[in-house]
Amino acid sequence: MHILVIGAGGMLGAKLLARLCSEDVLGGKKITRITRYDAVIPPPPPASTFPIETFVGDLSATGEAEKLIATRPDVIFHLAAIVSGEAEKDFEKGYRINLDATRILFEVIRKTGNYKPKVIFTSSIAVFGAPFPEAIGDEFFTTPLTSYGTQKAIDELLLNDYSRRGFFDGVALRMPTVCVRPGKPNLAASGFFSNIIREPLADREAVLPVSETVRHWHVSPRTAVGYLIQAAELDTARLENRRTLTLPGLSCTVAEQIEALRKVAGNDAVKLIRRVPDETIIKIVSGWPRNFDPKRALSLGFKAETSFEDIIRVHIADELTPCN
Amino acid sequence: MHILVIGAGGMLGAKLLARLCSEDVLGGKKITRITRYDAVIPPPPPASTFPIETFVGDLSATGEAEKLIATRPDVIFHLAAIVSGEAEKDFEKGYRINLDATRILFEVIRKTGNYKPKVIFTSSIAVFGAPFPEAIGDEFFTTPLTSYGTQKAIDELLLNDYSRRGFFDGVALRMPTVCVRPGKPNLAASGFFSNIIREPLADREAVLPVSETVRHWHVSPRTAVGYLIQAAELDTARLENRRTLTLPGLSCTVAEQIEALRKVAGNDAVKLIRRVPDETIIKIVSGWPRNFDPKRALSLGFKAETSFEDIIRVHIADELTPCN
Repeated sequence: MHILVIGAGGMLGAKLLARLCSEDVLGGKKITRITRYDAVIPPPPPASTFPIETFVGDLSATGEAEKLIATRPDVIFHLAAIVSGEAEKDFEKGYRINLDATRILFEVIRKTGNYKPKVIFTSSIAVFGAPFPEAIGDEFFTTPLTSYGTQKAIDELLLNDYSRRGFFDGVALRMPTVCVRPGKPNLAASGFFSNIIREPLADREAVLPVSETVRHWHVSPRTAVGYLIQAAELDTARLENRRTLTLPGLSCTVAEQIEALRKVAGNDAVKLIRRVPDETIIKIVSGWPRNFDPKRALSLGFKAETSFEDIIRVHIADELTPCN
Repeated sequence: MHILVIGAGGMLGAKLLARLCSEDVLGGKKITRITRYDAVIPPPPPASTFPIETFVGDLSATGEAEKLIATRPDVIFHLAAIVSGEAEKDFEKGYRINLDATRILFEVIRKTGNYKPKVIFTSSIAVFGAPFPEAIGDEFFTTPLTSYGTQKAIDELLLNDYSRRGFFDGVALRMPTVCVRPGKPNLAASGFFSNIIREPLADREAVLPVSETVRHWHVSPRTAVGYLIQAAELDTARLENRRTLTLPGLSCTVAEQIEALRKVAGNDAVKLIRRVPDETIIKIVSGWPRNFDPKRALSLGFKAETSFEDIIRVHIADELTPCN
């Protein structure tokens, strides 16, 4: 089995690679080759029993998708995107990377004869835009309030049409916010959800820019990677013509996050959280989904953490434990 | 006020032209010029107090949208599309005409400096795909089961994002099935809804390929044109960031259609309907929406016929009455 990972340099891409290399199989089949693709050079690949090749390029550029698909990978994980803030700031780049590159990839697959790979695509809960119900159901409409969310919603529609037509076998996954994100604090508006856990655990201060009553939808990086693999192994006949799944997450408030941190790491960790209200972030976050009712994905066996303590423990085990 | 009608050669386009020419104003402003655009030469324009120019071309071709937008029309009605059956048969043509041409138009508008026209776009209830509730609400998700429906759903998303960004002031209208369609019976799967009324009224036989229990969602051509004008005159601030409207229609069964025909034209007309079940059409129609709950459009003042007799009377008045 040959696997192509587009967006292999990102956080999820790298973790997916590690998991594939350690498991050695996908869907019961021995992995024989992995191709990594990204716009920037990804970190060195993990040890593996099979060859891993790496290409760096811009998927929207002429000939790039052709080059990747010419090797006829059996499974394609398409995780590449520019983030919400950048797509909002640079309209043309957002549409080029988040829409055109995806459509080019789909078109190249369609035009390849006698070829029907599995395509796992990461969409986002940004396809939803306020106002929405307290818990968003599987049949709620997509009214994105960002160009990023618009691009993801369009990609979902294309993936569904190309799959219905039989050009490939696609699944689009609306990921919860991945928390605790490893690495440095970043400037994404959602960054604080991870910062207020990761930084105190490393004995550093973190800034909380919103009220503790803010509720959001989380999943650990480990579970997010599990979702990708589960989707690749899913019998897609069960999806019929609705190949977009809102995935389970844990809905919890910032207060609940902080209480979980206290239980796992004690009061001293909690004291490292500084409250510095930021009106811009407060406004952005107020338009975000707080909770979902993802019946369909649950019935297909997708399962998130059930407490934020579990999410913190995953972070400690996967990021803070030596030789893991 | 300069108005551009893209798709001016179609049934709705021609009726819109006639209405604009007879009213002479749109949104309280005197019409000073109309530009008609279509892929085929439209019928001669109606009499008007202002110049009407006509261009024939392919909106997806290089330079076409630029040519049209260079004249900076104040209001753009974009009605052009290839129909569902053709988009399903010719995948590439469907995406080129129904998606790329629309996106090119939006892009040309965006790139024109200091210009923010009103854009009225006709979408379709084909954005919905079974299974769905008996009456589809305004917040139900779009899971199209045709490439045509996919293309319209994508156009809606683009229109919303371009409007949110301030590039133009758009409204997307999901039209009910327009009935009674004037002209000859056509091969569209939905053709019989009109055929079984129009043909008997003209003393000709018509074929009914489905059961009388089939329920569908109708609006007269006159009301459909009224919707276009109403959308162009709408204060779009009332739409906030949700610029796609499912428009009101009349939900009725074929049996109710036939009873209305009996009341308006008598038993002899009804006897001209021949039942010839067609399994292909029965299967297609079973996946179509039957009823909607379009609260939002109703609250904005959009109003459909309330009985199928009214729809038949509109047909008689507008199509069968000399010198109308």
